[in-house]
Amino acid sequence: MRIGVLTSGGDCPGLNAVIRSVVHRAVVDHGDEVIGFHDGWKGLLECDYRKLDLDAVGGILARGGTILGSSRVQPAHLVGGVERARGHVADLGLDAIIPIGGEGTLKAANLLSEAGLPIVGVPKTIDNDIASTDVTFGFDTAVTVATEALDRLKTTAESHQRVLVVEVMGRHTGWIALHSGMAAGAHAVVVPERPFDIDELTSRVGARFEAGKRFAIVVVAEGAKPREGSMDFKSAGTDIYGHERFTGIANQLSVELERRLGKEARPVILGHVQRGGTPTAYDRVLATRFGWHAVEAAHRGEFGMLTALRGTDIVMVPLAQAVESLKTVPEDRYSEAECVL
Amino acid sequence: MRIGVLTSGGDCPGLNAVIRSVVHRAVVDHGDEVIGFHDGWKGLLECDYRKLDLDAVGGILARGGTILGSSRVQPAHLVGGVERARGHVADLGLDAIIPIGGEGTLKAANLLSEAGLPIVGVPKTIDNDIASTDVTFGFDTAVTVATEALDRLKTTAESHQRVLVVEVMGRHTGWIALHSGMAAGAHAVVVPERPFDIDELTSRVGARFEAGKRFAIVVVAEGAKPREGSMDFKSAGTDIYGHERFTGIANQLSVELERRLGKEARPVILGHVQRGGTPTAYDRVLATRFGWHAVEAAHRGEFGMLTALRGTDIVMVPLAQAVESLKTVPEDRYSEAECVL
Amino acid sequence: MRIGVLTSGGDCPGLNAVIRSVVHRAVVDHGDEVIGFHDGWKGLLECDYRKLDLDAVGGILARGGTILGSSRVQPAHLVGGVERARGHVADLGLDAIIPIGGEGTLKAANLLSEAGLPIVGVPKTIDNDIASTDVTFGFDTAVTVATEALDRLKTTAESHQRVLVVEVMGRHTGWIALHSGMAAGAHAVVVPERPFDIDELTSRVGARFEAGKRFAIVVVAEGAKPREGSMDFKSAGTDIYGHERFTGIANQLSVELERRLGKEARPVILGHVQRGGTPTAYDRVLATRFGWHAVEAAHRGEFGMLTALRGTDIVMVPLAQAVESLKTVPEDRYSEAECVL
Amino acid sequence: MRIGVLTSGGDCPGLNAVIRSVVHRAVVDHGDEVIGFHDGWKGLLECDYRKLDLDAVGGILARGGTILGSSRVQPAHLVGGVERARGHVADLGLDAIIPIGGEGTLKAANLLSEAGLPIVGVPKTIDNDIASTDVTFGFDTAVTVATEALDRLKTTAESHQRVLVVEVMGRHTGWIALHSGMAAGAHAVVVPERPFDIDELTSRVGARFEAGKRFAIVVVAEGAKPREGSMDFKSAGTDIYGHERFTGIANQLSVELERRLGKEARPVILGHVQRGGTPTAYDRVLATRFGWHAVEAAHRGEFGMLTALRGTDIVMVPLAQAVESLKTVPEDRYSEAECVL
Repeated sequence: MRIGVLTSGGDCPGLNAVIRSVVHRAVVDHGDEVIGFHDGWKGLLECDYRKLDLDAVGGILARGGTILGSSRVQPAHLVGGVERARGHVADLGLDAIIPIGGEGTLKAANLLSEAGLPIVGVPKTIDNDIASTDVTFGFDTAVTVATEALDRLKTTAESHQRVLVVEVMGRHTGWIALHSGMAAGAHAVVVPERPFDIDELTSRVGARFEAGKRFAIVVVAEGAKPREGSMDFKSAGTDIYGHERFTGIANQLSVELERRLGKEARPVILGHVQRGGTPTAYDRVLATRFGWHAVEAAHRGEFGMLTALRGTDIVMVPLAQAVESLKTVPEDRYSEAECVL
Repeated sequence: MRIGVLTSGGDCPGLNAVIRSVVHRAVVDHGDEVIGFHDGWKGLLECDYRKLDLDAVGGILARGGTILGSSRVQPAHLVGGVERARGHVADLGLDAIIPIGGEGTLKAANLLSEAGLPIVGVPKTIDNDIASTDVTFGFDTAVTVATEALDRLKTTAESHQRVLVVEVMGRHTGWIALHSGMAAGAHAVVVPERPFDIDELTSRVGARFEAGKRFAIVVVAEGAKPREGSMDFKSAGTDIYGHERFTGIANQLSVELERRLGKEARPVILGHVQRGGTPTAYDRVLATRFGWHAVEAAHRGEFGMLTALRGTDIVMVPLAQAVESLKTVPEDRYSEAECVL
Repeated sequence: MRIGVLTSGGDCPGLNAVIRSVVHRAVVDHGDEVIGFHDGWKGLLECDYRKLDLDAVGGILARGGTILGSSRVQPAHLVGGVERARGHVADLGLDAIIPIGGEGTLKAANLLSEAGLPIVGVPKTIDNDIASTDVTFGFDTAVTVATEALDRLKTTAESHQRVLVVEVMGRHTGWIALHSGMAAGAHAVVVPERPFDIDELTSRVGARFEAGKRFAIVVVAEGAKPREGSMDFKSAGTDIYGHERFTGIANQLSVELERRLGKEARPVILGHVQRGGTPTAYDRVLATRFGWHAVEAAHRGEFGMLTALRGTDIVMVPLAQAVESLKTVPEDRYSEAECVL
Repeated sequence: MRIGVLTSGGDCPGLNAVIRSVVHRAVVDHGDEVIGFHDGWKGLLECDYRKLDLDAVGGILARGGTILGSSRVQPAHLVGGVERARGHVADLGLDAIIPIGGEGTLKAANLLSEAGLPIVGVPKTIDNDIASTDVTFGFDTAVTVATEALDRLKTTAESHQRVLVVEVMGRHTGWIALHSGMAAGAHAVVVPERPFDIDELTSRVGARFEAGKRFAIVVVAEGAKPREGSMDFKSAGTDIYGHERFTGIANQLSVELERRLGKEARPVILGHVQRGGTPTAYDRVLATRFGWHAVEAAHRGEFGMLTALRGTDIVMVPLAQAVESLKTVPEDRYSEAECVL
């Protein structure tokens, strides 16, 4: 078999582990040939690639980033993109294409699959918001980094007798906020799924001070917003692509909490540090398994599918189903957290 | 409600997180009273306990060990143990007991439950070998510690041009060996479930050197053994309780590999460092959820049950079922690993 | 002897290690009595303290923050502050006071010492800017946290093909920027000691892209400023105490670099995460030694002095000398860095 | 200039950082040419090398091991070794050789220097036992790894109510034992410089249990030995080179302590994990500075010298002086530790 692999979208710890696993399984066990496209779909559209043998993937398992590069180019956004992709797949004699990417990438993969290309997708997002898989690799690393930061911030918040409002990633879903907040014992967690009421939040945090505590940690997902009319909130507007910008909730929330509580409150924005660097052991195992099973699916001719974790098993799920909706934090998980937060 | 909690058996990162979660959920949300028995079942048998309020569990979420202490005492091993336990439960007016422990503890819990005591168990083992739950807390921390050690050992093995035989925990099952070996890209993984053939292992490691590589990492679970007749193997005998001792496989294997390969081989025994210290974010979340759901089960009157992770949900499983058999590494997981190891 | 200890100023990893070491040395080896004042000088001024025995300092060595609490209150700022302090020292029968703090605290300590109080100071600052000691505890932890963040940010910057401008602590000196930038292999380091020329910085970063690299990391100390007239720069103004605010350099610099280079540039502000949490081994050893030697100095009657590291030795230095000037990054250290940055 | 660099002896975190720094300073700032010999002195003796440009050292700063490989070959041990080395230096037109290595390597470097070769040495040892430099890179990483292990072992020792005897590296000196023991708050530290009295050690550890504590941590350097006649002690003999083997002190000591104290005691041998993997920020900075200053010394024609840290400065020290004697833990450092151990 001849297999093409590519990574698309933002950085995510575990990308290299998938690439390595694909090459190991395909080359060593099946005698396949593997090529890697550069910079995501762009490489496929421009026929820019290199051969991937065992040496090419030596030592990359624990390394962050992606040796193939990435971009946000999507074939369907380009005139003739799908046709161009189809042409290159034929020219290169590819029997399977394994795109590794997030929601946008998987939608593109689904389109190409519907156009007849032999696609096996591998889901990737630190946000953990892809439906149809229990977990995505990158999420555990993001939660781990955020939790380590929260652990450190607690002693500082306590020493300085402050409220710290810590903004973590999560534009549409609060998974990172929920898990890191639960892991670090934050005192309130604010997620995009549930617009917050500033009065409730203030009284929750205030109750801690009334009980004699000297600090509080509020974890807020970048996409969280106050309930309509609950407080003044200035959106950061849209970027040049018309996407909503997310910079501001921690700043605005800390100003508001300071004003209402009469306690020093400061924002901390963890930012990109959550999405780069060495993956955790958990993410390396998951990424490796995804790569292995993607190759197996290709050999079984199961195209138009996505690797997914269900319990402890890796299963294949239709791409179409995977991109239907985001996986949001369900109400019961949030209630579950409330008691310990 | 009045709830008693205890921790029994060996150290495991996340014990304190369970205790804290039980107290938070029970005291804050249900207005329950919680007491903690000292040193496992021993505390119940000797009526040695203390009250656990919010202050008692402050700051323990990320701390290793257990604030309640532990022991290996099991009520069923003692003459009149069950009766004594029953008596103290009645005297103390307990509506529920939440023992947190491994296989032995859960068997004891099942016995007490069958004797009519109101038990909700929480499974605990770094080995991940408890059937009926996808994962146990402590496992992710053990794998993380082992993987970090393997990451470090790789550069040393390479600089010294050696084979390193790294022994990780796992008396009956190879979960830690499998996951840490996969996460670190070990070159062979040896597990108890599958007695190894020394010829096969030698040729697998030897192939690396023939391919021009200068080092190899073999991960071996402490309970791994050679296939009958495959090589001389001296068991370490039994301890004073008649339990098999596990000290030796890495030593013996490295001597044998050195002799056969003509390459320096050295054993490294990671030991207790895998089972102590701060839990990972993953384990803190799992432990916290287990504690929360154990309290809920008690309030619903679901006794004789165990908290368990299934996919992303916490479910309750009969204790009897949970202790029937160990969860071993299935053949397909091992094959899955082979290609990348 | 009767010794009073207090911690004053901002959070700094290692404070608890000093407190513990003072208690161990004084109580165990000298049979002294130790009391700890709450919330820095405030505790001394208000006679708010508790006894510190071995149990009181159990388990705190590796814990961030300070068990005594802290504040920014300085006796000399208060009418009658010095007299009040003197009175309480007499009332409590204290033979020595060991304040642990930064520049402001040590100035206060020097005033009290000149007023006749028996003071032995212990310097504390993550910024490493106290003259007369080679290093202060807390600095190594701050550099370690910043370096780990930079390690992670590198793969993301590369995957996203961006310039990342990473703001680290350092209001008046660039020690954290210099060391973390050197440790992580940043491509430019900007420090307060040397106002930067935006043209030079742009061409330095631009040269990387011209050489075919796809990303760059610029580390900037929060107190860094452009050379007069080099670029528009808006100071963040002063806070309610009239102190300069430091929020803005990374934001402004990334906007300017993006405009000039035509490459995406993003700010990352590491913030408080650098000053909290578990101290590194290095900082724990240094803090422990400082505590030990402070007690020894008190027993030798060497008051008005400060513990300091010189090479591998702990020496005593006059307080007056220590607070004369900040220790800035010398020109040769910066040149030294330039080649590798 | 044309500069040759090589790494010799055992693995040590920071080797790659030195190589990278030498290349950056020499190539970028001086326009030099740099070659790297493979596998230490062996590469020089066999004229086995490769060119090192900026690309060759890209991404290696934080990586453990050495991209050049290493070996324990010493020119002076080989008939005609010195002459062969001289010949190759002439043939290759080398103006300077920068060997990076430990005691043995520096002795060899001194011999070659006395034979007229243009040598600038860089000291390397995780043991920190090289006289004439305050610290060597690799030491901070070793101490950090040992301290993290000790932090984890404490909770396990406590949960299991045991004495843990933890063996760390240090054949001739106790620096790692002293610093990691101090950083982790061990209850006794045993170093090679001071043969221990088993009665004293037993009573020290026993006193903890009498005071109601439930566990103890003893840190022992691998080269530590009991005082003559103090207890039975079986040396592990010599290896095939006649060097003393060091495997046994933790095992023997834990057996003896268990027998004498009537408490479970277990050995933990940290082993190679202390000498591999990513260097700490501290070691990366020190290694980088050493490389920079080695190049500067070569350009100033200061041969027969060694880079050394004195306080915060890098200075040059005669090779002959550096190899005269080992730097052992001085008595006052050990006393300093006693109170807190």
